[in-house]
Amino acid sequence: MFMHNKRLQYTVRVSEPNPGLANLMLEQFGGPQGELAAAMRYFTQAIGEDDPGRKDLLLDIATEELSHLEVIGNIVAMLNKGAKGRLAEAAEKQAELYSTITGAGNDSHLTQVLYGGGPPLVNSAGVPWTAAYIDTIGDPTSDLRSNIAAEARAKIIYERLINLTPDAGVRDALGFLMTREIAHQKQFEKALYAIEPNFPPGKLPGNPDFTDKYYNMSQGPGDGRGPWNEGEQWEYVDDRKDQSAVDGGDGSATVQMSKEDLAVLRNLWRRTATQNGERITGADLGAGPGAGAMTGGKTPRS
Amino acid sequence: MFMHNKRLQYTVRVSEPNPGLANLMLEQFGGPQGELAAAMRYFTQAIGEDDPGRKDLLLDIATEELSHLEVIGNIVAMLNKGAKGRLAEAAEKQAELYSTITGAGNDSHLTQVLYGGGPPLVNSAGVPWTAAYIDTIGDPTSDLRSNIAAEARAKIIYERLINLTPDAGVRDALGFLMTREIAHQKQFEKALYAIEPNFPPGKLPGNPDFTDKYYNMSQGPGDGRGPWNEGEQWEYVDDRKDQSAVDGGDGSATVQMSKEDLAVLRNLWRRTATQNGERITGADLGAGPGAGAMTGGKTPRS
Amino acid sequence: MFMHNKRLQYTVRVSEPNPGLANLMLEQFGGPQGELAAAMRYFTQAIGEDDPGRKDLLLDIATEELSHLEVIGNIVAMLNKGAKGRLAEAAEKQAELYSTITGAGNDSHLTQVLYGGGPPLVNSAGVPWTAAYIDTIGDPTSDLRSNIAAEARAKIIYERLINLTPDAGVRDALGFLMTREIAHQKQFEKALYAIEPNFPPGKLPGNPDFTDKYYNMSQGPGDGRGPWNEGEQWEYVDDRKDQSAVDGGDGSATVQMSKEDLAVLRNLWRRTATQNGERITGADLGAGPGAGAMTGGKTPRS
Amino acid sequence: MFMHNKRLQYTVRVSEPNPGLANLMLEQFGGPQGELAAAMRYFTQAIGEDDPGRKDLLLDIATEELSHLEVIGNIVAMLNKGAKGRLAEAAEKQAELYSTITGAGNDSHLTQVLYGGGPPLVNSAGVPWTAAYIDTIGDPTSDLRSNIAAEARAKIIYERLINLTPDAGVRDALGFLMTREIAHQKQFEKALYAIEPNFPPGKLPGNPDFTDKYYNMSQGPGDGRGPWNEGEQWEYVDDRKDQSAVDGGDGSATVQMSKEDLAVLRNLWRRTATQNGERITGADLGAGPGAGAMTGGKTPRS
Amino acid sequence: MFMHNKRLQYTVRVSEPNPGLANLMLEQFGGPQGELAAAMRYFTQAIGEDDPGRKDLLLDIATEELSHLEVIGNIVAMLNKGAKGRLAEAAEKQAELYSTITGAGNDSHLTQVLYGGGPPLVNSAGVPWTAAYIDTIGDPTSDLRSNIAAEARAKIIYERLINLTPDAGVRDALGFLMTREIAHQKQFEKALYAIEPNFPPGKLPGNPDFTDKYYNMSQGPGDGRGPWNEGEQWEYVDDRKDQSAVDGGDGSATVQMSKEDLAVLRNLWRRTATQNGERITGADLGAGPGAGAMTGGKTPRS
Amino acid sequence: MFMHNKRLQYTVRVSEPNPGLANLMLEQFGGPQGELAAAMRYFTQAIGEDDPGRKDLLLDIATEELSHLEVIGNIVAMLNKGAKGRLAEAAEKQAELYSTITGAGNDSHLTQVLYGGGPPLVNSAGVPWTAAYIDTIGDPTSDLRSNIAAEARAKIIYERLINLTPDAGVRDALGFLMTREIAHQKQFEKALYAIEPNFPPGKLPGNPDFTDKYYNMSQGPGDGRGPWNEGEQWEYVDDRKDQSAVDGGDGSATVQMSKEDLAVLRNLWRRTATQNGERITGADLGAGPGAGAMTGGKTPRS
Repeated sequence: MFMHNKRLQYTVRVSEPNPGLANLMLEQFGGPQGELAAAMRYFTQAIGEDDPGRKDLLLDIATEELSHLEVIGNIVAMLNKGAKGRLAEAAEKQAELYSTITGAGNDSHLTQVLYGGGPPLVNSAGVPWTAAYIDTIGDPTSDLRSNIAAEARAKIIYERLINLTPDAGVRDALGFLMTREIAHQKQFEKALYAIEPNFPPGKLPGNPDFTDKYYNMSQGPGDGRGPWNEGEQWEYVDDRKDQSAVDGGDGSATVQMSKEDLAVLRNLWRRTATQNGERITGADLGAGPGAGAMTGGKTPRS
Repeated sequence: MFMHNKRLQYTVRVSEPNPGLANLMLEQFGGPQGELAAAMRYFTQAIGEDDPGRKDLLLDIATEELSHLEVIGNIVAMLNKGAKGRLAEAAEKQAELYSTITGAGNDSHLTQVLYGGGPPLVNSAGVPWTAAYIDTIGDPTSDLRSNIAAEARAKIIYERLINLTPDAGVRDALGFLMTREIAHQKQFEKALYAIEPNFPPGKLPGNPDFTDKYYNMSQGPGDGRGPWNEGEQWEYVDDRKDQSAVDGGDGSATVQMSKEDLAVLRNLWRRTATQNGERITGADLGAGPGAGAMTGGKTPRS
Repeated sequence: MFMHNKRLQYTVRVSEPNPGLANLMLEQFGGPQGELAAAMRYFTQAIGEDDPGRKDLLLDIATEELSHLEVIGNIVAMLNKGAKGRLAEAAEKQAELYSTITGAGNDSHLTQVLYGGGPPLVNSAGVPWTAAYIDTIGDPTSDLRSNIAAEARAKIIYERLINLTPDAGVRDALGFLMTREIAHQKQFEKALYAIEPNFPPGKLPGNPDFTDKYYNMSQGPGDGRGPWNEGEQWEYVDDRKDQSAVDGGDGSATVQMSKEDLAVLRNLWRRTATQNGERITGADLGAGPGAGAMTGGKTPRS
Repeated sequence: MFMHNKRLQYTVRVSEPNPGLANLMLEQFGGPQGELAAAMRYFTQAIGEDDPGRKDLLLDIATEELSHLEVIGNIVAMLNKGAKGRLAEAAEKQAELYSTITGAGNDSHLTQVLYGGGPPLVNSAGVPWTAAYIDTIGDPTSDLRSNIAAEARAKIIYERLINLTPDAGVRDALGFLMTREIAHQKQFEKALYAIEPNFPPGKLPGNPDFTDKYYNMSQGPGDGRGPWNEGEQWEYVDDRKDQSAVDGGDGSATVQMSKEDLAVLRNLWRRTATQNGERITGADLGAGPGAGAMTGGKTPRS
Repeated sequence: MFMHNKRLQYTVRVSEPNPGLANLMLEQFGGPQGELAAAMRYFTQAIGEDDPGRKDLLLDIATEELSHLEVIGNIVAMLNKGAKGRLAEAAEKQAELYSTITGAGNDSHLTQVLYGGGPPLVNSAGVPWTAAYIDTIGDPTSDLRSNIAAEARAKIIYERLINLTPDAGVRDALGFLMTREIAHQKQFEKALYAIEPNFPPGKLPGNPDFTDKYYNMSQGPGDGRGPWNEGEQWEYVDDRKDQSAVDGGDGSATVQMSKEDLAVLRNLWRRTATQNGERITGADLGAGPGAGAMTGGKTPRS
Repeated sequence: MFMHNKRLQYTVRVSEPNPGLANLMLEQFGGPQGELAAAMRYFTQAIGEDDPGRKDLLLDIATEELSHLEVIGNIVAMLNKGAKGRLAEAAEKQAELYSTITGAGNDSHLTQVLYGGGPPLVNSAGVPWTAAYIDTIGDPTSDLRSNIAAEARAKIIYERLINLTPDAGVRDALGFLMTREIAHQKQFEKALYAIEPNFPPGKLPGNPDFTDKYYNMSQGPGDGRGPWNEGEQWEYVDDRKDQSAVDGGDGSATVQMSKEDLAVLRNLWRRTATQNGERITGADLGAGPGAGAMTGGKTPRS
């Protein structure tokens, strides 16, 4: 069960309203690397998890991320405070409001016109949050890796926001949120390595013929070697012939079909087959009288 | 520049048409953990990458994933071959086609009716592929962790598909594809650890006050300790009072506003304030004559 | 700040695994009328709200909805428990697993193959949750009406699920969740009517010329009158002539443009103008030699 | 059957082209509270409705909303008229067009580059319209409440647009559209209260143990009382202990499983269990040589 | 302005309820090739169109497609009539309703549970309609080609639905709808060819060096020639060397940067550069004690 | 199988960084008419195609479009090069970075903050690419028409981008990409007309009663005639009476139901029927004491 206390996890002190900055902050409220995505990623894992330790860990962090969602949401609300009143109360002439809302450095029209200054679950471009951002699949060695990566990404987005935020109070709160992503990443790392073995994920082993091959699919200028394809571990496959049909077959795709199915398909193939001969096309007609030569056909006119 | 050879990377031998199975395979064609997501994740990273070694690695794997997309797509096409012909040619009575397409063990109506048996970029539930699945953010220590996690997830989905596929030919090809995810994960691990340091990601250090704290946000039955919150590394914060307003403030959110803005906001607040007194509501009206007691108001009737 | 206790708000007692039923339950986990939508609708309103009473109410209910999300998620997880193990451990032959997962009465392939039995934030058709479901706009008399409607909808979906759930333990928990929607609706009604006046919403009055007109736009068999268009309140506008250009103008759309703009537009219009005369089209060509008469043109052949 | 007359429902007189303003207007063309959403909400309800009076009402209003969609679409088209020509005809140097299209006060690049100045079904941020905006569920007492709320929201968005529109002709047309939302809300209210009883929605009564309880889930500074939780109607539940496991159980989630299923699950649990002992993690490796102390493990190097 | 008559454009006579069939019909109600997509494609083009003839044509067909949307919607509603009542009134035991709703040949749970039997704007898989289906770009020679293609696609989907519909009354109405797509395609063809020239679309000519080249990008088994790449019109480019850097350059991507930008970028490159040397990775750690040889590193243990 | 060479198909020479321009270029990277949509449209068709010639053609063009995706992606990356470094390295004060990122003529905040300067698969408004853009349905005469239209649309978007791009190097590469769309359109036209007949698409003929009728659905000012509705080919249906119930029936929708179903439905209808009599509504209550006259009811107060 969730409970709530109206005291925030971190005090939010904003120096002055700035709807343009509010809009950028939405990235971590309703964006793909934001706090709702984090909270829901861990919460859905927790519910499906049967290991009591990991379940507890996931619930602890999911709950903290919800509290972070509240912190970043309050930053957005504070930055929008002035603009919200002016639009709702029609406190300025239309032309002034229009220029404030669409003016330079201020891409916040959506937040104001559509959402009235409250924090919506959209990213900084106005794209609604979607559960497609959540990559939980219900396997712990995969999900923990996903969590580690997610924390790393969230850390970077906070770092970028800190780098461009002129308001010291906002920067202070962002610094806290960024730091907690580092802490969470370390915690998930601990949980991953407490499963042994954790690689490869799952139960089925790979086919040893293909586990250590490196296919050099991109060649030409800039082709190189690195720890991922050199050394005794790796078999480096460079020749195009050895990259296709690697099972030793002919590289085709086939299916065995009944006579009846084949007969039906033959009718379909025949009905839609490419036929020989040069033909005038719609583009020929459309290119106009003088364009015949270009398209290789004669252009008729009714 | 991309080139193509009509020989597949792995020969596809399907035993018999099975549109229901085709539908499940779509998970790795147009699903979130599928091959298009993989190819596009690495391809977009490669274009933004400036380190020549990693750029090459990313292009190699992106290109191989496109070739995997082709393999899984051909599996889908082969499994749908018979159904495609029968629907296009109206080879059966309507009632027969209806029962084949909606019948038990066969959830493939979408693939057949909407896509004509070809492999669409949807998952096994028919949800169109979206770039929201791609978590590339343009920072190598984050993106490589995302890639490691993505390969782990794809490995598991292939393992699940193998576990439920009765067709030995399809299983064989799926085994190859699954194995390559293991190989790619190892390659991305090598690339991540070739950046030093790679943790924490980015350039800004965390605030040391909060890097090693563990907030026990979820308490009650099942609460526990593990390597992620015990040991000298961690400071375990259990008391609810120490979990809120951790900056030492009062946990409120504030913004400094001009007098003008405040005056406008006060008008807005007054206009929409909660007023004292008991009132009849729409639900009171709607609950009907005998329901007054339940809702605490008297139900008037005009 | 959010806190969590691992004790659920309502005890969940499931009689036996049933992945098909689990799938239907997703409607209230990640569906449009489900608990995440409810929690996020009220939470985003709470953050933007300045009236202390309503803010408190919204936080109370948002927090309870998160606890409901946890209850319904645990129902899903329990119903999937058996299937999860069998697929992860490959505990049955492939053909058996295939027929369980795609068999009659069991539409749960997505939940199992993609999500491993955990509760994903999708509806019962597998469509990912989206913030487009949330209709918060930051105006209290509108948002409270949206909340009242949302509670009514959620109540009905729970009622439908109860009507089709054979498992008595699941029905019991659904009954609790359904009842709370009724309670919340009553609470939001109280909050709406504590704002006076609350109709029309906002500050701007309507244009009295058009506030009480009823336009009978759909005519013909079944046309009728009711309390929404009869009585002294309503002016009933039936004549088509009085339904268009109701401002008394000519019903056209115009813009005043500079000479320069007009000159440029004239070039564009001329370049793409419809020209007189009968022409052979691509469809004429494509209809084949004998089809000329049908399409009104002569079919040329190069 | 629908019919059309090229005379608009309201004459549109735009003073001058203004693509930035055009973009904001899109909010009510292809946005969540816009006219397409309104028309489709009522139209889908009408088709499913069996009560002849409500069916007629819904068709009347759906048809009027389509006519409003046409009015707002024509406003967009008029405001974009000049820009459309200049881009299509390349009437200015590239640098001039670039600065017009991306310049201050003009966020309209999408509308121009992608849609050529026509009105696309996107909101003012360019997000495509989705049927996820429509909350029709096929129950009249819910759907009418949804309609009432939708009209209230649309009224507010029009009010905001009016407040920021410098063009008097556009304001005039917006005023008409806003007023009609007020009229429609009143009409839907009449239809809702003509169903008796209409509360609670649906047929199943709630569980009386939980219909009038108010759970004070959010506590701390700002906690308060109001008409929604005080008075004889409400039972106010404040103690955390009385908020969880409210059914009197232990607040756990359980399912009865067969021995076979349990045995399989035990294998899964064992395979992925958290194991005791301190371990070096990927983050330890990645933190670099001097970082060992911070992460609590020794950092090895091959 | 739109008007409506409650008489449908085509009488709908359904033989018996069949919610499974209702679900398939949704493909043309809320699916990508369905009637809403058609209506909105032509309606948005009409509003932006300045040529009076085409504007009229587009409005005529848009209005007819709305009327078709109504016909297909009524087919869905009729097919769902029985199921709607049974679920709303709880007319059967739960286990019976469960098996009806999830049973063989009946994929309609979403339509019933979420939408109560009314026709929702989703496709047959439950995916909500999105304006991303509409490809209007505001250029007549492109948009007309898009319309021609859209009518062709819609015709095929109707043909497939007719082929699988056992209900003769439904088939009759589908036959009408399918036929009208043929008529509309012919009408749009006439409109396209009335613009001269209409190819290439737009105003800018192509670069003659590349207009008639055919790049044979896919080679290997099955490589062939056809009217699209043989004949005097085409220059067939087969050699891989002639397919890349076709401008005669080196095929690289470059940008000229200031010294300051370059200096900053060098810092970034250095900080995240790949470094030489073999390193133990997270996967090495995770592969367990016996797995060292496989991954090429020694596995440490703290 | 796909292969790759790091030499681009066309050399990219960008004059100077310009993140605002980079953002506009995204339209053809991850936008609906962009190169990924093109590549995936043809690639999915190729896999489902059985005609060897068309399969080869589709693979050739799909592969070339992937190479174009790479070219446009590199343009984006080059234009973002400077901004990427400055944000990652915090090379400027926050206020400067804030004003660069949100400043006039520069709508690129999303690309920089969320994606770090790499090319994301979004359009110029930041909307993620979706497979809903792809209209492949697996029928060659429809799909080829879709391809022809898609090439026409892509040509126009490139033309618009060229018209507004001040950078000559970028314009040069865009010119190549635009030209290839012209070439591809011609190639697809050849493939379409090599199928005979190709109109109407599919196998089922239309109902001759409705193939050549033109319904004049939109009347009033601007109504006209053109090649699409005049001439001996067309039957022009102008009278509203002849436009509805065109099958000669009564234009109603009916279904035959069992007695049991009817009885259940009657209960539902009765329960939710509109009842006579004037009633006070929620809006009446909410309009306040003095508003009674306006809404036609007396406003009670408890």
